Amino acid sequence: MAILDSIKVADDVRKLQAPQLPVLANELRQLILSTVSRTGGHLASNLGAIELTISLLRVFSPPHDKVLWDVGHQAYAWKILTGRQEQFATLRQFRGLSGFPKPSESPCDTTISGHAGVALSAAIGMAVARDKLECNTPVKDRSQIIAIVGDGCMTNGISLEALNNLIESKTKLIVILNDNEMSISKNVGALSRQLGRMLVNVHYNRIKRAAESAGHKLHMTFLRGLYHRLEQAIKSIWLKNAFFEEFGLRYVGPIDGHDFKALQHALQSAAEYPNPVLIHVATVKGKGFPPAEKTPAAWHGVGAFDRESNEPLPPAGKPGFSEAFGKELIKLAEEDKRIIGITAAMKGGTGLNSFAERFPDRFYDVGICEEHATVFAAGLAAAGLRPFFAVYSTFLQRAIDCVMHDVCIANLPVVFCIDRAGSVGRDGPTHHGMFDIALLRPLPNLSILQPKDPAELAAMMRWALRQNGPVAIRYPKETDAQNATRESIDDLDFKAEVICEPQAPLTATGWIWALGTEVGTALRVADILREKGIQTGVVNARFVKPIDHDLLMRHAKTCKWIVTIEDGSRKGGFGSEVCETLAATNCRVFPFGWPDTFIPQGSIAELRKEYGLTPEAIAQSIQESLCGTGNA
Amino acid sequence: MAILDSIKVADDVRKLQAPQLPVLANELRQLILSTVSRTGGHLASNLGAIELTISLLRVFSPPHDKVLWDVGHQAYAWKILTGRQEQFATLRQFRGLSGFPKPSESPCDTTISGHAGVALSAAIGMAVARDKLECNTPVKDRSQIIAIVGDGCMTNGISLEALNNLIESKTKLIVILNDNEMSISKNVGALSRQLGRMLVNVHYNRIKRAAESAGHKLHMTFLRGLYHRLEQAIKSIWLKNAFFEEFGLRYVGPIDGHDFKALQHALQSAAEYPNPVLIHVATVKGKGFPPAEKTPAAWHGVGAFDRESNEPLPPAGKPGFSEAFGKELIKLAEEDKRIIGITAAMKGGTGLNSFAERFPDRFYDVGICEEHATVFAAGLAAAGLRPFFAVYSTFLQRAIDCVMHDVCIANLPVVFCIDRAGSVGRDGPTHHGMFDIALLRPLPNLSILQPKDPAELAAMMRWALRQNGPVAIRYPKETDAQNATRESIDDLDFKAEVICEPQAPLTATGWIWALGTEVGTALRVADILREKGIQTGVVNARFVKPIDHDLLMRHAKTCKWIVTIEDGSRKGGFGSEVCETLAATNCRVFPFGWPDTFIPQGSIAELRKEYGLTPEAIAQSIQESLCGTGNA
Repeated sequence: MAILDSIKVADDVRKLQAPQLPVLANELRQLILSTVSRTGGHLASNLGAIELTISLLRVFSPPHDKVLWDVGHQAYAWKILTGRQEQFATLRQFRGLSGFPKPSESPCDTTISGHAGVALSAAIGMAVARDKLECNTPVKDRSQIIAIVGDGCMTNGISLEALNNLIESKTKLIVILNDNEMSISKNVGALSRQLGRMLVNVHYNRIKRAAESAGHKLHMTFLRGLYHRLEQAIKSIWLKNAFFEEFGLRYVGPIDGHDFKALQHALQSAAEYPNPVLIHVATVKGKGFPPAEKTPAAWHGVGAFDRESNEPLPPAGKPGFSEAFGKELIKLAEEDKRIIGITAAMKGGTGLNSFAERFPDRFYDVGICEEHATVFAAGLAAAGLRPFFAVYSTFLQRAIDCVMHDVCIANLPVVFCIDRAGSVGRDGPTHHGMFDIALLRPLPNLSILQPKDPAELAAMMRWALRQNGPVAIRYPKETDAQNATRESIDDLDFKAEVICEPQAPLTATGWIWALGTEVGTALRVADILREKGIQTGVVNARFVKPIDHDLLMRHAKTCKWIVTIEDGSRKGGFGSEVCETLAATNCRVFPFGWPDTFIPQGSIAELRKEYGLTPEAIAQSIQESLCGTGNA
Repeated sequence: MAILDSIKVADDVRKLQAPQLPVLANELRQLILSTVSRTGGHLASNLGAIELTISLLRVFSPPHDKVLWDVGHQAYAWKILTGRQEQFATLRQFRGLSGFPKPSESPCDTTISGHAGVALSAAIGMAVARDKLECNTPVKDRSQIIAIVGDGCMTNGISLEALNNLIESKTKLIVILNDNEMSISKNVGALSRQLGRMLVNVHYNRIKRAAESAGHKLHMTFLRGLYHRLEQAIKSIWLKNAFFEEFGLRYVGPIDGHDFKALQHALQSAAEYPNPVLIHVATVKGKGFPPAEKTPAAWHGVGAFDRESNEPLPPAGKPGFSEAFGKELIKLAEEDKRIIGITAAMKGGTGLNSFAERFPDRFYDVGICEEHATVFAAGLAAAGLRPFFAVYSTFLQRAIDCVMHDVCIANLPVVFCIDRAGSVGRDGPTHHGMFDIALLRPLPNLSILQPKDPAELAAMMRWALRQNGPVAIRYPKETDAQNATRESIDDLDFKAEVICEPQAPLTATGWIWALGTEVGTALRVADILREKGIQTGVVNARFVKPIDHDLLMRHAKTCKWIVTIEDGSRKGGFGSEVCETLAATNCRVFPFGWPDTFIPQGSIAELRKEYGLTPEAIAQSIQESLCGTGNA
């Protein structure tokens, strides 16, 4: 790491000689690979952005110049080169370096960008602010604003809104379209088709170079095919010039995103050009690491893996819910032709891979477009089909209005299968699924459920299919082994489930109402309390909404306090539903969940400990509340 | 109304002779004008869509063919012609006809569409469903799916996401771009510039026809100008063909949207074409009503007006908050150069007209793009400016994720001024501002306030400007005279305000915590309860979050019950914040707010009565709760 070690601050990159750059790129690849193999993280996209990152730092000077990464999971090289090489070993660890840009970590990080599609809007804001605040600075000395937008992000509605507004904002910025022809899964949509055609000549040049260097002679029919594609490309270059220039952007490209000279030349020209510029850069996801180049989706976000065999190390938790979802959906779809599976660029993550293979005509990946996905599902449901939209909790936030306006008002039978609900661990505050209950609970007509284990998830999906209105089922990625529940059920009498009754006289006890996987936590809390002489029963709530009102009121009448435990934000969450329900009673409520703050990254165990959500901490807190008032 | 009276069902339109159509259009205009002058409603856009609606019904047969209106406030003629002429007098009245399409009202209404930009996504869903469900039907007999999208809606992110996904969905539908060159205010953005250029030749033809019929001779310089614009138009027609055809849409147009023959011809051709078609229709907002043609924005959504003078009738409530907001923002901006005003196509409605005139360089109307507006504001704030984003409560729902991810995580000082919070009356369920508190409350770092009167709004804006993090201030359109508060304050000690203390011994009383304009309701409730021997104090809460914890806990300790009153959804709202805060205490909470259902249209007074939110009903409900338990 001879060269990398000489880079202490961002400006050091500029001091290198041109021949050192490929060596630096290689060193960065090795460092990222060895770190991510240990910590897990986003691999393929980061490997693809290394030459681009180096080139940016040859031309621009952060933090004076502001670079916005969209989405942020391509910024590892940026972190290492802007003074965070030593901390890089702590990537995604509790109190360590974030896997995404984070302004509080370095002035070189401009925005938080865990959700895709926002860089262009933020960049326009920053450019406008720059113009107003630096209005006495000569134009050439003003800071440059550079937004690096993945092609998957470009088709998100916010990017397109921003693109449409750029011309009105009358400001200068540089947009780099980092085009690896992927979002997380393979890209979709008309724009990516068009971009794909524009890239043909970059690919052609690459193939030609590769062929020449290998000494191969190109076969004639292959050449004819290439010629045809090249012709298309030339035609499309003319078109896309028109396309982007309609939006007030001078188009430059496509540029080979692994060619230092071409990149630096394009960036330098863009910096000098007085008006907005878009540089179309073609990168290879996973570049320089053959397994990731081959299957970039599989190497998009990875856990720790063995650096020799490139095999994943066994994960900490038991996988379960996503797999169970995918399997059950196939089973249901075999029987019910109305079922449609939808994802927003998360086919693999949500467990829909096998469904997509089994039912290619009933599977829709709409790209990073959660709003379109939701309204599309509403349209399908209104016309008689039964869409299941599998989506991460944090990304469904994008579509709250569509859930309300397009699904719930008309009471349409769309099923939202909300994966990665609750704490997700190392991806941190932008990715925790903390808010789905609180954001969905106020929406009339929507049922909200959480299963305690994968078998219950399957049962809930079957239940959802029998409903005539919208249903949201939330679940985390993993069934935490520690929280494993005692038994599973196959079909459901769909009320809350009493897992265990309190053993002492009723008036002296309380109940723990636990949601989903927190049933495991609740049982452990009950055990600890029992040892301290406090008897509690445990309920698997199953429903956030409509909550099992009868059982809850019965409990409220026969005991003095009810504890709620959930993996989600306490404010507005499941505990809040219980508080509201019991507001007019004399029963006290002790709600446990994540507090009203953005929860940082870390292992789930570390985070639970930090925020008092281990069984021991919960038990102690309950005991203290009770002792304080003599209500035990 | 000779012809109109002969139209009993949609199919009757098809039976008319061509010369009857302009007569029918005129009858529709008169009916809409006379009705809206009485009921209020959306005028200009409805007047512009009359010929288009008639033409649609000449070519297509609802409900077999499905017509989606985006946004729905152009569907009055549609309602009248699809069997609802008699009910049209009840437009926007309690239990009357909705101002928007509503499937439960007629099978000819396909979707609920109060929020802009969703028709294309829903139409793709319906078209895909049609293909799957009618797979054994010959293609020519399958139902047609027609989405009529306003040009303002087309630049919304969801429309653009849908446009980008259309090609992948491999289905047939017809998109009608109803281009009146307006959203609610004047349209913005690159796409509308491009569309505008496409329209030049329609305008040219219109001007030419008008000029010829008046016998005028066109002046030579004018002709030269026209020639130049025409040349541009021809160029752009080539371009836009490319533009829309990139998205898999065959482009037809532009068509004069008031020319029956051209419209029917285009619709018929589109119906017969096997693949997706976009028909670009140029309409005139306010067509046939000179005042609205002249100032369409002023005649977009109107209250009742005098049909002789065309002057607005005095509104029921006292206007106040929007005006106060606009005035205070100007005042603040005079002193603080960092202030920027932002709206998403609601310049007039939010009270920003004067600000825009006074500070054109510090005012941004981004079109119907609440997400872009929020992230743009985040960018401005991150770079040192102080954006105020004025937005209707119901439309801010679109941007919840951006508030969370782009503003709150980074704790940026963006001020959200949330107009039309709470019940909005006659626009009904899609427009009530019921959910803003519930949706914003779970977001860490965000302060949420509501003023009791316009003076307090101004004070809260000044307070917001002194904060270093995000602030949301919500308020209704009108200060209801009945709920007027007793006094106003100029600057604030920013805790909750005790409006009146209870007069009886403390242990026998409760407190009413009221939010915003509900302080007026609370005082009335307190009066009624006092007459019944129940003593309460009244608090102006001011803060939903952070709530005045000290005062609330003090009250909880010294009384047995606390009532909350808010103009917003009870589930997850201000009352929920109080329930959560007092969960572990023995104080009971009686929360009053709108229940967990979609609230219909009606006057605010009618709705309050229906849902038990009059002072009398609230007082009685409290009394019953207390009598039931002897806690009074």
